[in-house]
Amino acid sequence: MLPAAALAELQRVFAADALSTDPAECLVYGYDNSRRQATPDAVVFPTSHEQVVELVRIGREHRQPLVARGRGTNTTGASVPTAGGIVASFERMNRVLRIDADDRIAVVEPGVINGDLQVALAPHRLFWAPDPTSAPFCSVGGNIACNAGGPRAVKYGATRDNVLALRAVAGNGMAFRCGTPTTKGSTGYDLVRLLVGSEGTLALVTEATLKLAPLASAKRTLRATYVDVGAAAKAVARIMAQPVAPCALEFLDDECLRLARGHGGDAIPLAGAMLVIEVDGEADTLPAAVDAIARAARGEGLEDLAVAEGEAEVAALWAARKALSPALRTLSPNKINEDVVVPVSRVPELVAATRAIAAKHALPIVCFGHAGNGNLHVNLLPRDEAEQARATHALDELFDVVIRLDGTLSGEHGIGLAKREFMPRALDAHALALMRAVKAQFDPDGILNPGKLL
Amino acid sequence: MLPAAALAELQRVFAADALSTDPAECLVYGYDNSRRQATPDAVVFPTSHEQVVELVRIGREHRQPLVARGRGTNTTGASVPTAGGIVASFERMNRVLRIDADDRIAVVEPGVINGDLQVALAPHRLFWAPDPTSAPFCSVGGNIACNAGGPRAVKYGATRDNVLALRAVAGNGMAFRCGTPTTKGSTGYDLVRLLVGSEGTLALVTEATLKLAPLASAKRTLRATYVDVGAAAKAVARIMAQPVAPCALEFLDDECLRLARGHGGDAIPLAGAMLVIEVDGEADTLPAAVDAIARAARGEGLEDLAVAEGEAEVAALWAARKALSPALRTLSPNKINEDVVVPVSRVPELVAATRAIAAKHALPIVCFGHAGNGNLHVNLLPRDEAEQARATHALDELFDVVIRLDGTLSGEHGIGLAKREFMPRALDAHALALMRAVKAQFDPDGILNPGKLL
Repeated sequence: MLPAAALAELQRVFAADALSTDPAECLVYGYDNSRRQATPDAVVFPTSHEQVVELVRIGREHRQPLVARGRGTNTTGASVPTAGGIVASFERMNRVLRIDADDRIAVVEPGVINGDLQVALAPHRLFWAPDPTSAPFCSVGGNIACNAGGPRAVKYGATRDNVLALRAVAGNGMAFRCGTPTTKGSTGYDLVRLLVGSEGTLALVTEATLKLAPLASAKRTLRATYVDVGAAAKAVARIMAQPVAPCALEFLDDECLRLARGHGGDAIPLAGAMLVIEVDGEADTLPAAVDAIARAARGEGLEDLAVAEGEAEVAALWAARKALSPALRTLSPNKINEDVVVPVSRVPELVAATRAIAAKHALPIVCFGHAGNGNLHVNLLPRDEAEQARATHALDELFDVVIRLDGTLSGEHGIGLAKREFMPRALDAHALALMRAVKAQFDPDGILNPGKLL
Repeated sequence: MLPAAALAELQRVFAADALSTDPAECLVYGYDNSRRQATPDAVVFPTSHEQVVELVRIGREHRQPLVARGRGTNTTGASVPTAGGIVASFERMNRVLRIDADDRIAVVEPGVINGDLQVALAPHRLFWAPDPTSAPFCSVGGNIACNAGGPRAVKYGATRDNVLALRAVAGNGMAFRCGTPTTKGSTGYDLVRLLVGSEGTLALVTEATLKLAPLASAKRTLRATYVDVGAAAKAVARIMAQPVAPCALEFLDDECLRLARGHGGDAIPLAGAMLVIEVDGEADTLPAAVDAIARAARGEGLEDLAVAEGEAEVAALWAARKALSPALRTLSPNKINEDVVVPVSRVPELVAATRAIAAKHALPIVCFGHAGNGNLHVNLLPRDEAEQARATHALDELFDVVIRLDGTLSGEHGIGLAKREFMPRALDAHALALMRAVKAQFDPDGILNPGKLL
């Protein structure tokens, strides 16, 4: 329950249609794609930086939790207001403020939908690299909060590599700007990258200056099938060890292929494993680049290597890949989708280990994802309560394997609630203590997204 | 003067040949390329992480300033022990611990010389992107401290973009690891990028995991001359607005050309301005890439565009470019070399403004540098005391211009002592306060490189 004084203050800042305490409406702003849920005491819809400054002031004064929300597509519970308080939905701060093609930057409000931004950039022959599956629905602010990635990250980097400057309001009430709209900068501590991936626990972002990349003129999609996952994983390491960077290098194991074929039809082959490889470039350089990638894709265990013919086949390959995540949910409403990451050379070991864990616990586990970054989506698919209980142990063992392989818990989804308990396994006690110390400075009252990440 | 108790403790940790309080030897470790100087009370030469942990413990216990030192090639006074205390020279922690070609990473101690690392990587057909002019002498640890760049940064990024993980000892005594040896990671706050560019004020780095890039098989060097600096600056913006990224895009103004010709001979033309453009790629893609860059380089004001013929001409172009900085010092022993950065589209305005400032103060000012990142080395060249006095005002105006053009104080040199007083112009008071708050957490006693950066 929001204190009456806090509500009164909110009402002074937010118009009636930009503030709700109606439980039915609040409910809608209390869940995300983790299927966790909690009802906030109020939802506000800021439309300006100044309102966010006021919001933080009110939150501090009344010690109310403030949970920033993009579009709730994240999978970790990071936007679930487990401690109640106020959800700040940034959906109305959705303006693209400036596109500067010469400097390859866009200045946006945090509520801009990733896909809308790409549409706005296309006439300038530019794009912003992060392309999570949820791109048509997720917001740039959410991408910043969890350091979102996607297939293109293998060549163009994830969110952290593509944000140049931020305007934000720290939990201590201080509004500030950090970074510069330049690709180089060495003026003080890097607060920009500190905020990216901090899941709304340090500051609320009100404006972002994004680094854009030029759209390549042409693109070619290859599909390579292998006798087994090990052979495919070794091909991934070979592809990444040569100089031509693919702009996507996606891996699907045999189970995924079976499922994907249901969505993508005959364009999806059945095999031990498949790589979907995308190469971009200029018309006159692309053929040589495709050759280089194809050479690396060949090797022991290759069954078939083909350049996708026509837009329909390319679309089917990608539709299948992108439909996998939701498809798996149909199969297992309680699926656990991890986005662990290991060094590329350890991908074969990771895949082998997930197989062993699946066998040991008699639990379906499938692997797919951004193999070029070593970032695999390991999906545990419990179908009943007994399997669910076993999945908990399997997950525990998975994280142990990942850490042993020099990897980490998350490549692009973040920590949120879901992986918080595993943080002491991924990070040493001193690193965690320093992160907590940073948190305490930015948010001394602990009002920003309490209970998440740390 | 080091307290006797502190010295006794240091002697227990460091062997006689790894510790000196001899003023003559201390003197040598008290200056850098800023020509500032101060004599520390002691110099130690750690050879292990554990010794650094002990060093910080002793520093804290006895409240002694600790100044980490690479090879003292920085230009900002960042490694000058202005508060006395202990200099930790990392020159003996210079092992390349591991090169992992499949994962494109190298694990190194901070004292490894940048150039030595590149030599060790070459057989693997890999390189580490940062390539400051001082690469043959400067250390990786120093590169990390000031977020060093160089010509290649325009395509491959600066130091911050190419460090994946660190081992370090914070000023509060906590030894920790942060980051992972993977190209993606979303597990907690990004302490790695926070340390990069922090100039030894937060923690002493004892190990770094570096992101490597594959060496392109071939490279082509172009030189383009223009009637004036404005035409060249516009060509820079055109080159950066198209999809093919050059791996170097260096700008030299007319004054620089005159000076460079003295070093590089006839290979250096006389013109209003020159761009040295380097394009790398595979043998079969390079010609098309060179064409794309050449098309962009053409335009109003182009005088001559030529692909450098033979290794000798390429070497002469680069030798001239790299010799400029020291050459200017001969001209003006008190030269002020700023490495300001502005958005690429504002480079013409920046160059024009420096011309106006030079005229107003009757002071030689030359511009050259990494134009593709908007990162220009603006060199003020006072030749006598009167010009030196005027240079102070000129510098002041230069920073005002840079901030007005949406740029910042430093692209790759850092802040140190030299630009500290200008920080409140580049950053708002809240951003500075948050940086100070972070500093206070990592280094509550203020022993790490006191008086620098903030």
